[in-house]
Parts: sequence; C-alpha cells; structure tokens
Amino acid sequence: METPAELDVNSVTSLIEHWSSLPLEERKLHFNQLPRTDAEELFLNLAAPDQYELLSELSPLEKRSWIRLLAPDDAADLVQLFPIEQRNEALQLLDEQSRHEVMGLLAYAEDDAGGLMNTRYIRLRPDMTVEEAIRYIRAQARNPIEIIYYAYVLDAGQRLMGIVSFRDLFVAPPNKLIRDMMETELIAVREDMDQEEVSRQFSQHDLLALPVLGETGQMKGIVTVDDIVTVVEEEATEDIQKLGGTQALDAPYLKIGFSEMVRKRGVWLTVLFAGELLTASAMGYFEDEIQKAVVLALFIPLIISSGGNAGSQASTLIIRSLALREIQLRDWWRVLVRELRTGLALGAFLGVIGLLRVVLWPIKDSGYLEHYFLIGSAVAVSLVGVVLWGSISGAMLPFVLHRVGLDPAVASAPFVATLVDVTGLIIYFSTASLFLSGILL
Amino acid sequence: METPAELDVNSVTSLIEHWSSLPLEERKLHFNQLPRTDAEELFLNLAAPDQYELLSELSPLEKRSWIRLLAPDDAADLVQLFPIEQRNEALQLLDEQSRHEVMGLLAYAEDDAGGLMNTRYIRLRPDMTVEEAIRYIRAQARNPIEIIYYAYVLDAGQRLMGIVSFRDLFVAPPNKLIRDMMETELIAVREDMDQEEVSRQFSQHDLLALPVLGETGQMKGIVTVDDIVTVVEEEATEDIQKLGGTQALDAPYLKIGFSEMVRKRGVWLTVLFAGELLTASAMGYFEDEIQKAVVLALFIPLIISSGGNAGSQASTLIIRSLALREIQLRDWWRVLVRELRTGLALGAFLGVIGLLRVVLWPIKDSGYLEHYFLIGSAVAVSLVGVVLWGSISGAMLPFVLHRVGLDPAVASAPFVATLVDVTGLIIYFSTASLFLSGILL
Repeated sequence: METPAELDVNSVTSLIEHWSSLPLEERKLHFNQLPRTDAEELFLNLAAPDQYELLSELSPLEKRSWIRLLAPDDAADLVQLFPIEQRNEALQLLDEQSRHEVMGLLAYAEDDAGGLMNTRYIRLRPDMTVEEAIRYIRAQARNPIEIIYYAYVLDAGQRLMGIVSFRDLFVAPPNKLIRDMMETELIAVREDMDQEEVSRQFSQHDLLALPVLGETGQMKGIVTVDDIVTVVEEEATEDIQKLGGTQALDAPYLKIGFSEMVRKRGVWLTVLFAGELLTASAMGYFEDEIQKAVVLALFIPLIISSGGNAGSQASTLIIRSLALREIQLRDWWRVLVRELRTGLALGAFLGVIGLLRVVLWPIKDSGYLEHYFLIGSAVAVSLVGVVLWGSISGAMLPFVLHRVGLDPAVASAPFVATLVDVTGLIIYFSTASLFLSGILL
Repeated sequence: METPAELDVNSVTSLIEHWSSLPLEERKLHFNQLPRTDAEELFLNLAAPDQYELLSELSPLEKRSWIRLLAPDDAADLVQLFPIEQRNEALQLLDEQSRHEVMGLLAYAEDDAGGLMNTRYIRLRPDMTVEEAIRYIRAQARNPIEIIYYAYVLDAGQRLMGIVSFRDLFVAPPNKLIRDMMETELIAVREDMDQEEVSRQFSQHDLLALPVLGETGQMKGIVTVDDIVTVVEEEATEDIQKLGGTQALDAPYLKIGFSEMVRKRGVWLTVLFAGELLTASAMGYFEDEIQKAVVLALFIPLIISSGGNAGSQASTLIIRSLALREIQLRDWWRVLVRELRTGLALGAFLGVIGLLRVVLWPIKDSGYLEHYFLIGSAVAVSLVGVVLWGSISGAMLPFVLHRVGLDPAVASAPFVATLVDVTGLIIYFSTASLFLSGILL
C-alpha cells in the first residue's frame, strides 16, 4: 500500500503517482487501455492541465461524459484551459445547473477565494430541528456534493447566520432547533481574498472548510482544505522559484516550452547582468590601485561572494518569515538590530579565517611578502564590513519591497548578491587604501 | 470577518492571528485576562511551543486541565517539549487512557506518519448494518474525536478491511451490511513513512484522512489533512531556508536564540567561504596575466556572478521539481539536454550584451583602446561558457546529491555560485589567453 517504486500500469494509484513523469504518448495509451471506472478514477485525480491534455482530441460527445464527472470548481478549472473560442462550446457540454455554476466561478480570478470555491454545500434554515436537518442532509447528500464537512445556516436573504458541524448534529437531542445549537462566531473569507491569505486562515485555524462570503455577507460557496494543500504547495513553489532568481514557471519543469523557459529565466538573468555591469564600472574606478598592487585583485571574488552569501541567507530567512506572517512590517527595527549583531559575529569569524589564510599561506612569492600582515588585515576588515552590509541589506530589502507593495520574494539570493557585489567592491578598495596607502598604493 | 489589520485583544481570532508577533509578556497578559472559554479556544489554536510557553510557569494542578483539553496527538507534541526529567510528571497529568495513547505516540519520530497521527478514530465491524453503524457512530461521537471524516472497518485482528465515508452511510439503505458497501481499494500509509511522503499522498489523492498501518496491516491511527497543511508549510520553509544557504532554523526568525542563529548560518557561511578561498588560489595562478592586462580584472565579478546566477536558477528549479516528484532521477538525461540548450541561449544573449558594453562604452582611456574588440570578444565567449557551465552544473548537482542519498536542497544558490566561481575564473582566463596571447598577454 506504500508508494510503489516502479510504475504498475494496472493500478490507478500507481498511474496517478507517476503521471507527470510519463511521456505524453504513454499517458494517452494507459488512459485508453484502462477499464472505464478506473479511467474515471484516474481522470478525477489528475490536475486540470493533465485532464485537458487527455480530452483535447476527443469528440464533443466523448468530452461530455468526462466533463460532467467533475464538480463545478474542477470543471471551471478545466474550462479555463480551453482556447477562448472553444470555451463556450465546452460550457454547452454541461447540464444547465452546472453550466450556471461554472460560469459564475469563471468570473473569479483563479487565485482568489472565489476561484477556489465549491458552490455545492449543505444549506440549513435556522428554524429546522436537528431531526429535520439530518433528514434533509440525507436527501441533499444524494446530489454530487463533493464531501460533507459542515452545514451552513442561511437566512432568507442567503446571508450566513451560523455553522453546524456533523459531529454536533449527531450528538444533539433530535428536537433541538438549529438556531439554538449553531456556531455563530464565524471564520469566513471574502470572495476576492487572495489564495495565499485563504491558506493562511486554514493553517491558523485547523479547519476543514471555510465559507466564502460576498460583500454584504451572502453565502457564495465553500473552500475545502483538500484544495488548500495544493495551494500551499503552489505558493511555496512560486516563492522558491523567485528566490532562485527566476520568474515563477507556472508549470512543471519538463512540461514548460523551451522559449517560455528561456524567457522566464532570461528576464531576470539580464536584469542581474545589467546590475553586475556596474561592478565593471566600479572596478574601472579602482584600476590604478589594481595596477599598483595586483595582489588586491586576488581577493575580490572571495570578498564580494562572502557578502553575497551573507545577504542571501538574511533575505531568504526574512522573506519566508514575512510570507508566513511570523514577522510583520513593524518588526523591521528588531530585525535590523538582530542582523547587526549576527552580521558582526559572522563577519568577524570569517575575517579571522581570511587573515590567517593570507598570512599563513601567501600566494606565490610575488614580492609583497613584507606587507602580508597589512594585506591580510585589509582583507579581514573588508570581510567584516561586507558580511555586515550583506546581512543588513539582505534583511531590509524584503521590508522595503513589501512596504512599496512589491513581492518581497523579488529579493532573491542572486538579486541580493548582485546588489552587494558593487558595494562590496567599494568597501574593499576603500579599506585597502586605508591600510596600504603610502605603502603599496 | 476578514483578517483584522490591527490586534483586537477581545477577539480570540485576532489574538491567534497576531500571537507570534506579540512580546512574551503581552502574550501571557492577554491569556490571563481572557474569560476561561476564550482562553481555552486560544490555547487549542496555538502551536505546541506557544502552548508550552503559557503552561511552563503554572502549578501541576493548573497545568492538568489545559493538557487534558488536547487530543492525544497534540498532547504528545506538547509533552515532547518538556525537559526530559519533567516529561513523566507531565504524562501523569493525563487520564489513564490518554496517557497510554500519548506514550504510544511519543515512540514515533516527530516527522513520521506515526508522529502525526491521531489514535482516536471511528471503528466499525464488517457485519454491522448501516443503521447499526450510524447509531454506533452517534455514540462514539460523544467522546472527544477531533473531527469525523471516515469510519474504518477492522477485522478481529485490528487489521484494516475497508473504509466507509459518511456520505455513503447517509445514502445507503439502513439494513445494508457494512462489508457490502465499504471501499476496499485502500490508500494507506505506513507508520514509519516520512511526513514529506505522507503530504504527497494527500495532495495527490485529495483526501481528508489517511489510515496509518503497522507492518502487518493493523490499524494504528489516522492522519488528517488539517495537520498536513502545516506539514507542507514546514517542509517548504525548510527547503527555502536551505536554498538560501543556511541550515533549517526549526523556529520562527524572531524566536530563535542569537547563538543558535549564528551557528546555523555560520556553518554554511564558513563552508562557502572555504570554497571561495579557492578563488584566491585560482586568481594567484593568473596573477601574471592580471599584471600584464589589468583590464581583465575589471570583468571578473561580472563573469563569475553571471555563471553563479545561471547556476542558482537551474539548481532551484530542479530541486523543487525533485521535491514535488515532477522529475525523477531517471530524467537526468532529459534535463541535461534541456539545460544545454537553455544555457547556450542565455549565455549567447548575455555575451552579446557584454560585447556591446565593452566595445561601445570603454572603461577610462587606459591605453587598451585598440584591443577593445578582442577584449570584448573574450568577455563574450567567456560569458557563454560560464553561463552554460553554470546551468549544467546547477541542474546536475541536485541529481548527484539525490543519488548519493543527500538532500538535493543542499545545492543552494550560494553553494552553486561558489562552485561556479572557481571554474568561472578558469574559463575566463583560458579564453582570454586564447584571444589575447601575444597581444596583451
């Protein structure tokens, strides 16, 4: 019953498991060879783009039975993948009630609460008795309601009054009124709430489903926790890709087209390159110093990359903490103080190693021998400065981006490293002049 | 009903929302000022370390009622936070049945399926009728079973035979036998399965709960999806922190101690620094070339950082795809081919920009003027080589780490950048000698 290591083409579970790594032709082959009920089971468990892939070549009549298998929220996800001009045709394949619901869902942005929600949930009236409610639920459950979580108590204007869990229904006396037992301290989300915020509500409150409300409190649908696991993974993937210095791919690595991939990586790589071009200018400014003491050039990669690494660490930690709301904007001062101390400690440690490296293991006998202690000191002090600066700017940049309304995850490791490179060069050469002016410079 | 922007100390929901960003004294103050039922609601919604914080100063008798509020899996998480010598005392606060269950859970590693599971679930016998089952569930529901999802059908040896959903129970004829309606194609997890694998099962199959089985198929408990949202977030946080070049913190940024923070970042920073020290050696090897043509030194940061950035992009994308199982080990060849093409395209593009930069906008009038086209060409060709090398090694490294049993996330952006720096220098200076040997060199 565990994950099989190898594909078993007769097991739906195994096929789902390996689906995304199979070549397209194989996927179509397996799908067509499965008995109908297994094929349906497989189809229901695939992501919308995989479902679309399987349907795209079928006739409208063949498509119909597959689309009608889906709950409205899943059908909406699928319909959205059809080219605009075929979307209407796809909608016509649904029965009238479903079509109405799916069209309602299509009006929402895909990553809003409204785009995630299911419009089929169990509605109760406040003046029902527990016994009536249980009977009523048994009747409603014959319709394809995805899974039963809670029942929602609505007033005549479809506004949400309260929630009843099945557990409470089960244990209440049969003649008690719903209005007297319903939970009225409600946690709900607005239809236009971003999916990242919706998933935060789930992880904070450990709930199975959240009601989605319109502006004036009318009940629109429910978002269920099984959809949220996927959302949390998607959001983390987007953040991770941004932190790696690329635009979010929005598709698995092996499925995205070549030109799309080059574009998504190329944009950021070019931006970073443009920033790095400043290092050449900065270096040009110090060309005379390098000419006089080539030994200084040898430590440039060491010093600027240490600053970049310290900055990557700080920005990554802060970006994740901001995303999880462990840190708020107003905590910037506490973070700054922390990074000052951390950066100093880390810089000092690396500085000592750097000093020892220069003094104990001189690079070739290049005539600077008598000055090695001074050169080593310049390297060590630069390391403290660069690591401190990297930690502080890496930690503060996400706050700045967040404050001006940009995604903090833009402050990726490569982005921070690039920023710190230019300043790192300035710090290094300024420190070197301080130590070596009149001696080597 | 939306997330309040500001803390409302009278609302439990608002307190939970802001909890982690409040100072410790304020947290204790609010907790003590809340009416008992609100305080209980708050307590139940906090993470185990926050619960421990609130309890730590209470007398054993005061602790007892708080610990007894918790379901066995949550109680086990809390007990684990007590210092070893106090753990037994804490266990004694539980009633006997709960103590037995909690001790059973404590035997599991925290991030195994066994460590996540709840031992209270609804058990049915196969020869019950639907009507008996419903009556039996109503009786069991009076005990503190966290939430009702499915009912599990066990044989006399406690082995799992099938699963019945409440929806199916509701719609079945009352005198049907459970054995005739139960689902027997089961998805289950083994008690020692890692939580990352468990969460993958949830996101693949869209389930609310998974049964946890022992070696011979005996039912041990269930893992529920609301716990999985937290797991998915934790795992993503760990990966993100590793990708940022630091060890996983295991605690929110503002809560982790200073020395712990310095240690977790310092270890990797030092490893990376040791790697970067090789750049100084590599540069030393090319000292004569730099002496002859200082202009070469000016483009060092530009070239090595471009390789590092390309490598960060590739490694981040591959690491995430491996973690989500979008890519398997055996796909390494397809990835290699892709990265070859992508790296060439990106490198060529940056190369052209680099060439234009050198030719159109020379750095100072430093006497190399007549050679700018050659210098520019050397820079351009190096950029192609370095970006190509960065993409390939960044993409292959996670496979190698995975293959030898290490966590691919070790191939963080800073780690890959450091690797690429040394090779980048060698590529650059070799290319430069090719173009400029006999002219500047």
